[in-house]
Amino acid sequence: MPEKILDDISHRRYNPLRGSWLLVSPHRTKRPWQGQQESPSKTTLPEYNPSCYLCPGNKRAQGDVNPKYENTFVFVNDYSAVKESQAEYTQEGDPSDLSNLLLRAAPVTGKCYVLTFSSSHNLTLADLTPAQILPVINVWTQIYASHLSPSNPLSSITLPLPSATPAIEKPSAQYKWMQIFENKGSAMGCSNPHPHGQIWTTTGLPEEPASEIEQFVKYRKEHSGRNLLEDYAKLEMGKEERIVFQNEGFLVVCPWWATWPFEVMIVSKQHRRSLVDLSEREREEFAEAVAEVTRRYDNLFETSFPYSSGIHQAPLEGTEEEINASHFHMHFYPPLLRSATVRKFLVGYELMAEPQRDITPEQAAKRLREDCGGELYRKHL
Amino acid sequence: MPEKILDDISHRRYNPLRGSWLLVSPHRTKRPWQGQQESPSKTTLPEYNPSCYLCPGNKRAQGDVNPKYENTFVFVNDYSAVKESQAEYTQEGDPSDLSNLLLRAAPVTGKCYVLTFSSSHNLTLADLTPAQILPVINVWTQIYASHLSPSNPLSSITLPLPSATPAIEKPSAQYKWMQIFENKGSAMGCSNPHPHGQIWTTTGLPEEPASEIEQFVKYRKEHSGRNLLEDYAKLEMGKEERIVFQNEGFLVVCPWWATWPFEVMIVSKQHRRSLVDLSEREREEFAEAVAEVTRRYDNLFETSFPYSSGIHQAPLEGTEEEINASHFHMHFYPPLLRSATVRKFLVGYELMAEPQRDITPEQAAKRLREDCGGELYRKHL
Ligand SMILES: O=P(O)(O)O[C@H]1O[C@H](CO)[C@@H](O)[C@H](O)[C@H]1O
Ligand SMILES: O=P(O)(O)O[C@H]1O[C@H](CO)[C@@H](O)[C@H](O)[C@H]1O
Repeated sequence: MPEKILDDISHRRYNPLRGSWLLVSPHRTKRPWQGQQESPSKTTLPEYNPSCYLCPGNKRAQGDVNPKYENTFVFVNDYSAVKESQAEYTQEGDPSDLSNLLLRAAPVTGKCYVLTFSSSHNLTLADLTPAQILPVINVWTQIYASHLSPSNPLSSITLPLPSATPAIEKPSAQYKWMQIFENKGSAMGCSNPHPHGQIWTTTGLPEEPASEIEQFVKYRKEHSGRNLLEDYAKLEMGKEERIVFQNEGFLVVCPWWATWPFEVMIVSKQHRRSLVDLSEREREEFAEAVAEVTRRYDNLFETSFPYSSGIHQAPLEGTEEEINASHFHMHFYPPLLRSATVRKFLVGYELMAEPQRDITPEQAAKRLREDCGGELYRKHL
Repeated sequence: MPEKILDDISHRRYNPLRGSWLLVSPHRTKRPWQGQQESPSKTTLPEYNPSCYLCPGNKRAQGDVNPKYENTFVFVNDYSAVKESQAEYTQEGDPSDLSNLLLRAAPVTGKCYVLTFSSSHNLTLADLTPAQILPVINVWTQIYASHLSPSNPLSSITLPLPSATPAIEKPSAQYKWMQIFENKGSAMGCSNPHPHGQIWTTTGLPEEPASEIEQFVKYRKEHSGRNLLEDYAKLEMGKEERIVFQNEGFLVVCPWWATWPFEVMIVSKQHRRSLVDLSEREREEFAEAVAEVTRRYDNLFETSFPYSSGIHQAPLEGTEEEINASHFHMHFYPPLLRSATVRKFLVGYELMAEPQRDITPEQAAKRLREDCGGELYRKHL
């Protein structure tokens, strides 16, 4: 049973993945909203847009021409945030100098890919069946596998991927981290509605995965080898109130520590370190979980629901301990709070003090679980 | 001299206030933007708006009537995120239980105020002179002083505040932290253009100030009692390239580790722990710094520049070490990147991996310092 009192009082909840707290103020949604309204995205896009740089057969900004691909297509981002080669840089002077201590910089190289999810300009993951999402997951798995360090124990796993999955060119250097993510909708900074995600791979281990991995390693040490997210998934399965959907391999849950109003996490019930640990069957179950999340999101406010999503898994290179403690999961951070046009702003207090949310994760999960399960709303329009 | 190469290569910079890194990709602004456009706020607001809940003499949502105030007016937020009293809550069971470890909650109480900056509906801090901003700073100082714990060494300081500054009712309990902040503009979640800020006071020490204070304490220990931000201010004064403005008491700087495109920090050059440490003269200098930041922001893209700002200073209650290591400063986090309508989205990669910025802080500082210093652009329209 939910601890009902938490629906009415202000409290903090602890996020064990980041080792930090957030503020929950459930009564706050009662305030009237007179601020910015989002413009819901048009649902009347053409299936093919001649000026889209992601549609099959079109020319891109730097002159390359997309192939006439069927499902997915991967290419190196024409405006990559990190590049494989750049001028060398090392900070001069003694690292204990005040200047190097307070004005510290380190070079980063890496590779950025764009991956389309469908050849149709007007679809989103919410429109696709699990079988249509599976090729996307296969490409993610393939790209991840092809960037693993030879010293990573995961690199010896043989992948049963279908032969249609495109081979990926090896990067020119060994990178540490691969961030697979999607920005969906203009409210989340997406500049092209053609369904696509990005993959940024870097020499450094970024802050978010670094802190998660640290928490995972610590938990295993303190709990005789048990895994934080495996224990958490078990706990949630016993409680049910934060569960949105589950199948044999995966749980879709509004985490206890969710920051965004309808934040969810897809987590493997068993301990899986990364995409390459998933069996063929589990990749299908993961595709089903992604389909459930995105369709339920769209059904919630009958709109194409904006979000940023991302996969956290084992680093490409790391200590054996770091790799083995990692637990495969996917975060979805959606901004909408009350309707297709009213979002939550994580601004002043949230930026200066700590994250703050208005509805509880239990209230969010109930709506996504009970009210949003049917067919995609657009199908009956 | 700037390390010019950092204008061209991807690199990470270290933020010593948070103990974390961010990614800088200066070449990235070259990509074309086809995404969301912000709607710049109208500059044709009336001086008085009969339906504004902040204008003098108007009725608020819960029935209270605002006095016919002159400069500033403080009241308890009608939709406070935290309250002084609520039902009691303590998490049951052994804190070492799996459930209490992974589903951890703690109650929070506190008090939330709203503070108007002017009686005119159509002004912003950018329109006010330093002398008109001073009453706001005096109220901040007064509220902060009246919430200090008797055990806090800062509570014994006698304040030379003008007699017009309103007396503030003592809170019913001792709180730990006071967060003074402003959300300006609809892009930053502000729902009423009447110039105002907020003040949230809580029993817990929130994450952001907690990590800053930890860094300050650590720095003092490791550097024989020197203060991180005092050392940083000295360094920046020697380099000049990140300075936007300075007067005797304060430095306005685009910090080396800035995340937001035109992020600035106002920092006291000498070690000041909080508002009550400032002399009358320093409060005037601080008012001038606030006026310079907000006017230069508006001049940059000739628009009412959205931002969230917030003051970090000593906690209301804490160890003597925490209080004495704190260093008074104010952050401004503005989202606009390229024009009045094109903002930076801190989304997918930023949320899943780590903050990423496009222009360098040196480029941002140069524009704010050299191109934006004149009269407020609206004055000649
Ligand atoms: O309190 P306001 O101005 O209604 O609301 C605004 O500021 C709050 C504090 O940063 C945020 O929690 C809200 O999301 C935002 O819309
Ligand atoms: O790469 P895109 O889609 O052009 O850009 C979007 O995603 C990036 C990665 O999260 C962000 O840095 C940008 O601010 C955002 O607009």
